[in-house]
Amino acid sequence: MVPVAPSRGRLRPLGLDQVRITGGFWAGRRHINATATLDHCHDWMERVGWTGNFRAAVEGRIERDRGGREFADSDVYKLLEAMAWAGGHSAAPALVETIAAAQEPDGYLNTAYGRPGQRPRYSDLEWGHELYCYGHLIQAGVAQARAGGEGELTKVARRAADHVCATFGPDGIEGICGHPQIETALVELARLTGEQRYLDQAALFVDRRGHGTLADIEFGRAYYQDDIPVREATVLRGHAVRALYLAAGAVDVAVETGDESLLAAVVRQWEATVARRTYLTGGMGAHHRDESFGEDFVLPPDRAYSETCAGVASVMLSWRLLLATGDPRFADQAERTLFNVVATSPSADGCSFFYTNTLHRRSPGTVPPADAESPRAESSLRAPWFEVSCCPTNVARTLALLPAYLATTDDDGIQLHQYADAEISADGIALRLRTDYPVDGQVTVRIDRTPDHPWTLSLRVPAWTEGAPARLVSPDGARRTVAPGTAALTRRFRPGDEIRLELPMAPRWIAPDPRIDAVRGTVAVQRGPVVYCAESVDLPDGHETDALRVDPSTRPVDGPDATVIAPGALVTPDGRTEPPWPYGPLDRPRPPAAAAAGLVLVPYHSWANRGPSTMRVWLPTGGR
Amino acid sequence: MVPVAPSRGRLRPLGLDQVRITGGFWAGRRHINATATLDHCHDWMERVGWTGNFRAAVEGRIERDRGGREFADSDVYKLLEAMAWAGGHSAAPALVETIAAAQEPDGYLNTAYGRPGQRPRYSDLEWGHELYCYGHLIQAGVAQARAGGEGELTKVARRAADHVCATFGPDGIEGICGHPQIETALVELARLTGEQRYLDQAALFVDRRGHGTLADIEFGRAYYQDDIPVREATVLRGHAVRALYLAAGAVDVAVETGDESLLAAVVRQWEATVARRTYLTGGMGAHHRDESFGEDFVLPPDRAYSETCAGVASVMLSWRLLLATGDPRFADQAERTLFNVVATSPSADGCSFFYTNTLHRRSPGTVPPADAESPRAESSLRAPWFEVSCCPTNVARTLALLPAYLATTDDDGIQLHQYADAEISADGIALRLRTDYPVDGQVTVRIDRTPDHPWTLSLRVPAWTEGAPARLVSPDGARRTVAPGTAALTRRFRPGDEIRLELPMAPRWIAPDPRIDAVRGTVAVQRGPVVYCAESVDLPDGHETDALRVDPSTRPVDGPDATVIAPGALVTPDGRTEPPWPYGPLDRPRPPAAAAAGLVLVPYHSWANRGPSTMRVWLPTGGR
Repeated sequence: MVPVAPSRGRLRPLGLDQVRITGGFWAGRRHINATATLDHCHDWMERVGWTGNFRAAVEGRIERDRGGREFADSDVYKLLEAMAWAGGHSAAPALVETIAAAQEPDGYLNTAYGRPGQRPRYSDLEWGHELYCYGHLIQAGVAQARAGGEGELTKVARRAADHVCATFGPDGIEGICGHPQIETALVELARLTGEQRYLDQAALFVDRRGHGTLADIEFGRAYYQDDIPVREATVLRGHAVRALYLAAGAVDVAVETGDESLLAAVVRQWEATVARRTYLTGGMGAHHRDESFGEDFVLPPDRAYSETCAGVASVMLSWRLLLATGDPRFADQAERTLFNVVATSPSADGCSFFYTNTLHRRSPGTVPPADAESPRAESSLRAPWFEVSCCPTNVARTLALLPAYLATTDDDGIQLHQYADAEISADGIALRLRTDYPVDGQVTVRIDRTPDHPWTLSLRVPAWTEGAPARLVSPDGARRTVAPGTAALTRRFRPGDEIRLELPMAPRWIAPDPRIDAVRGTVAVQRGPVVYCAESVDLPDGHETDALRVDPSTRPVDGPDATVIAPGALVTPDGRTEPPWPYGPLDRPRPPAAAAAGLVLVPYHSWANRGPSTMRVWLPTGGR
Repeated sequence: MVPVAPSRGRLRPLGLDQVRITGGFWAGRRHINATATLDHCHDWMERVGWTGNFRAAVEGRIERDRGGREFADSDVYKLLEAMAWAGGHSAAPALVETIAAAQEPDGYLNTAYGRPGQRPRYSDLEWGHELYCYGHLIQAGVAQARAGGEGELTKVARRAADHVCATFGPDGIEGICGHPQIETALVELARLTGEQRYLDQAALFVDRRGHGTLADIEFGRAYYQDDIPVREATVLRGHAVRALYLAAGAVDVAVETGDESLLAAVVRQWEATVARRTYLTGGMGAHHRDESFGEDFVLPPDRAYSETCAGVASVMLSWRLLLATGDPRFADQAERTLFNVVATSPSADGCSFFYTNTLHRRSPGTVPPADAESPRAESSLRAPWFEVSCCPTNVARTLALLPAYLATTDDDGIQLHQYADAEISADGIALRLRTDYPVDGQVTVRIDRTPDHPWTLSLRVPAWTEGAPARLVSPDGARRTVAPGTAALTRRFRPGDEIRLELPMAPRWIAPDPRIDAVRGTVAVQRGPVVYCAESVDLPDGHETDALRVDPSTRPVDGPDATVIAPGALVTPDGRTEPPWPYGPLDRPRPPAAAAAGLVLVPYHSWANRGPSTMRVWLPTGGR
């Protein structure tokens, strides 16, 4: 039950049978995912015809009856993957049966192409998403095999993969898909089956990209990363989800083939992207126009696209890089993105979603319809479904496999990367983690079972502890400060030993790099890994989030119910006496500011659960 | 030769035969326009097949041979309009002949629709642009009639307008065009011909809009202003050019029908748009995705779309509002937009153009191809042509008719709205304006001819003199301070009388409204109406525009060759030691700043004439 299973690399992943999340933040999210979100997605796909497409294809009425966009099949597959990692779902067997019936004798499977009245197979590699859909099919088949033994879906996936290898192999079409995704899936299938040709095909797809075989579209070939070969690129660019899926696939290929230079290329791109093209939340992709990264430091909070799926893809990439290198900065990035992007998308009830995750919402917008698809970035509220509804199933599969992200092993012992109330067992070691993280910063690790020889317990000390030291308490009671990175304890542990990590959870002002022009003169509040925001529903009547000012010489403090209070926050009246032209001499008078008792901030991931509202993460400081 | 000729309103426009620009900034621009830009546009349209479309239609090969987008016809018409206002062009007669030949017997004329193998007429009102194209055809026909007497093009335009009235009249298709534009043109044709039905049709189009007759597209119906009736809207929204053309048409209808409430509605929208949705340059439209306005105060400089055509349309709207109301703030807005958007688009040689006018360019980009169409917003350099090449001809027609924007008359006398070295004659009065504005702030008005009774000379005192008073010197030598708005002198003038307006031209820091989040903590420099910018070609080697800091406690001063020097400007080294994560505690150390001798700033309209460069208008101040 290992979601990502490299055959080599610095760290070894654990399976979902080895890690159990037993309480706290993620347990709650995972419970809602399993009991509400999976059904919600299935119901919607039935309603909008995406599951029905497979039946329509079998029954010869697909030309007339097909519903959804060209990539609708992929979301059915992602749902099946989520169901597999979640331990199964009653709807899965029938779905798999329908899908299997729709597969053509040569392994081709796509409800949008190739049948009478439809466009021919592979006639539109730029936008057709056929290989992308296979990728999700194959990934679902792999998940089914790992979670419950190889079943029908895995066979369908293998037939599809064989068809892809035959059609796009060295002697086939010299093409790639406009949307990378199949690369990771083919590598996983190779890992599952031991079949070299799936890996070879993935490597071929990675190497083919960047040479301009896809058409030059309005957004440029960078949109689908066909502008520069993966090995030569210095930063992620173009459509964020495409870029991140491709990078994840390149890591998979690099790891399996021992290609150090390819791995190093992706690490370089990741470093530049994280240092210059990532939001405080971990969100990636600034542009609405083409859902793409912006240039370096172009990170407008109010036009943040920060697509949910880019968050999912970023976690996938970070996880792969962590396994390959063991470097805790990749786990830092995954944590940031999990708490502030992936956890932000679904509503508290798990039945509506943010497609995009803006850091500043200026108008409350309208309430999305409960029974119709919504535009992608229209309202301040989450919507139950979108015409392009890739995020619900992407969140669902991520939450389902999340326990696998907590820990790894290597020849020296166990590494803890993410903190949750959990039980972990591997290599003759059993650990009990007790914590209310991220509400509380104390993580206790009890050794329940241990071999009789020395081994190393490694704990990630989050990068966000910069300037506010964390401490580690050894079984013998020794307490020491630990710097951001990795804290390791090597010894002959005994059952009952307890190790305690104490993380500093006081809320803190965060300042942006001055090169991020869009947030100059503002600060944000972070509490542990969790980014906070001001939401209009918490303001006194007549005040707007856009007229807030805070004083960073004060300190934010913990408030009730996981809120943070920024004392000394100032609220200015809104501009009813505004000037007719909003630019003027430096000495033009400003509207007066009034002191407020204290500004309530809430975790960013929790916003917009109390009706339409405005919101901002970056809070202007007192000056201009 | 009056470009916009309302039959009533507060002020009366002058014709191009009554105002002559004799020197200075606009004389140079107009000379290049007449001697280079018109030929350039004509050559490109021949090359890319837009003029050839009419020939292909006549010869029955349009299905196979048509070039350009669905609205390509409109640019041929805009070029003919520009040629008419410019006093004619040798290529015009043949063009008109071809166009006339392509008109169908019932008056329909469009090379993209209705012929064998093409889509049916009016089958796509949302995107088809057929009525939009008529609008430009009619406007060109009006221009030809006013500039040189009614010729063949005017007849073609009347036949087309008659066809539109028959097809879209009260008993016809209850539709509107996805792109407003025909409204102003029909009113002008009614003014030219005295035919009421053209005005009625324009009024019908204005009233029909906003009721959702067009389809609800991905961008929403606000994109083409079909979300809210014109009379009820409170701010301009959606696609900027569409919104501005529609508003201009609504003003035309309101003026001709005496509809005060419609006029008041547009004035309200203009006020809100200028106060909250306009760039310092006068540029409008912040979003790349749909070329639309953003929400209030969403004005990111580095993602400014600020389409050239929106600048042209904004000047058209301001001019109409000025004529209707006499309020000088509309002339202020026109001046700002003319100097900082319209004048920015064309290169110094008049043969390449900015489609969009960003206020912050972070990467120099590549050199656009000299012989191929360019993407709309890719390079730091102007491109010779675009697939959607609406801006070159829009700039050309604006420069050609620009003298008409300088002055008006009313029953009391003459009003001067824009300043240039010029000769003006109207109502028995002849004026000689001598000035090197905007390089120099002194404008001398000599009375060369005057009636023998008292009349009033009104001079606009620009809004940009806020905080730096202007002075007016009467013929008797009396010198007084004049506040922003209008300065009027009423007397019995004598030939030889001289009036002098002294405008304060010292460069000044401009601060943005604190609600414009994207430019918090920055200042800009304006010198008179001209916005300045820092361009990388003026920086010492190794420095980037993105690492500039200025100290607003110093004063910018005039430099050589129309430059401004910001003494005390600081230049920080770029971030070669940048942190791996660009957010951190408030006390995280910053890279050191080094004092620089002085930062050279150039007029924004002149940037990117010296090779690829980076640029910024808003300059970060010393703090964070």
